[in-house]
Amino acid sequence: MFTYIHHVGIACRDLDAKIDFYRETFGLILVSQEGSLQEGVREAMLQVGENGQLAASPLGREATPSYVQLLEPLGPDSPVGKFLTKRGEGIHHIGYAVADIAEAMSEIGAAGVQIIDKLPRHGSMGSSIAFLHPRDVGGVLTELVQVAAVAGHGVR
Amino acid sequence: MFTYIHHVGIACRDLDAKIDFYRETFGLILVSQEGSLQEGVREAMLQVGENGQLAASPLGREATPSYVQLLEPLGPDSPVGKFLTKRGEGIHHIGYAVADIAEAMSEIGAAGVQIIDKLPRHGSMGSSIAFLHPRDVGGVLTELVQVAAVAGHGVR
Repeated sequence: MFTYIHHVGIACRDLDAKIDFYRETFGLILVSQEGSLQEGVREAMLQVGENGQLAASPLGREATPSYVQLLEPLGPDSPVGKFLTKRGEGIHHIGYAVADIAEAMSEIGAAGVQIIDKLPRHGSMGSSIAFLHPRDVGGVLTELVQVAAVAGHGVR
Repeated sequence: MFTYIHHVGIACRDLDAKIDFYRETFGLILVSQEGSLQEGVREAMLQVGENGQLAASPLGREATPSYVQLLEPLGPDSPVGKFLTKRGEGIHHIGYAVADIAEAMSEIGAAGVQIIDKLPRHGSMGSSIAFLHPRDVGGVLTELVQVAAVAGHGVR
């Protein structure tokens, strides 16, 4: 069902400083920056690997890079703000790519895992996402990601 | 420098139950089980995606799957045991693939990041690994992975 690790989400206090760190120290490539007042977060997507990756998809082999997603809360009462207060900076969640998010939500829900989002919602770079409750996934906040059909991010 | 996300390490209390969960619920593929008395851990590597992935390497495009690494401590005083006591089950670290671990350690050390392992040591499936201190990586325990040259795990 999961086709590859789409991203690892990392909570931080200073997004701009962390973007610089990941670019300069580890060679990651900044591909997107977005913000959501609703989610109370600023975020950046940094591609791991200069050439992207290729993975099987219904359309054949496509470029499917993995990312580090850096998350800075807009305030202490946002979900990421609460995480920082409780746990400090560090890994926040893991996002897996799925071919069809509605189908994945249906199958995973039927297996007894609570899906936090009743319907898929908008994620980074035009993706559709849904989160699984960490209580049902061994303490791991787990995100399903169906990437946007338009391959604007398929850098090679 | 980092070429792809090699794995995400997840600490758990019951390895066998979690292997079953990730296989049955998410479709991951069990490819390796190992144990280390020295590290005080039992572990399993589960491949994400049936077809593996392809990424650029010095040898051309190769199958380079990403994995979930499940970690169960052999006792409470092991590194993963201490993590479980302090944080509970959840994401423990992230491992990035590098082409040349000695070169990566040298460059990252020169950038001021403390490398916990002075020399590369043996990791899962014949890999060479080294950990970076989370204090210098925004709270993220970060592992460098140079995969084994013999591509016994390059499933397509």
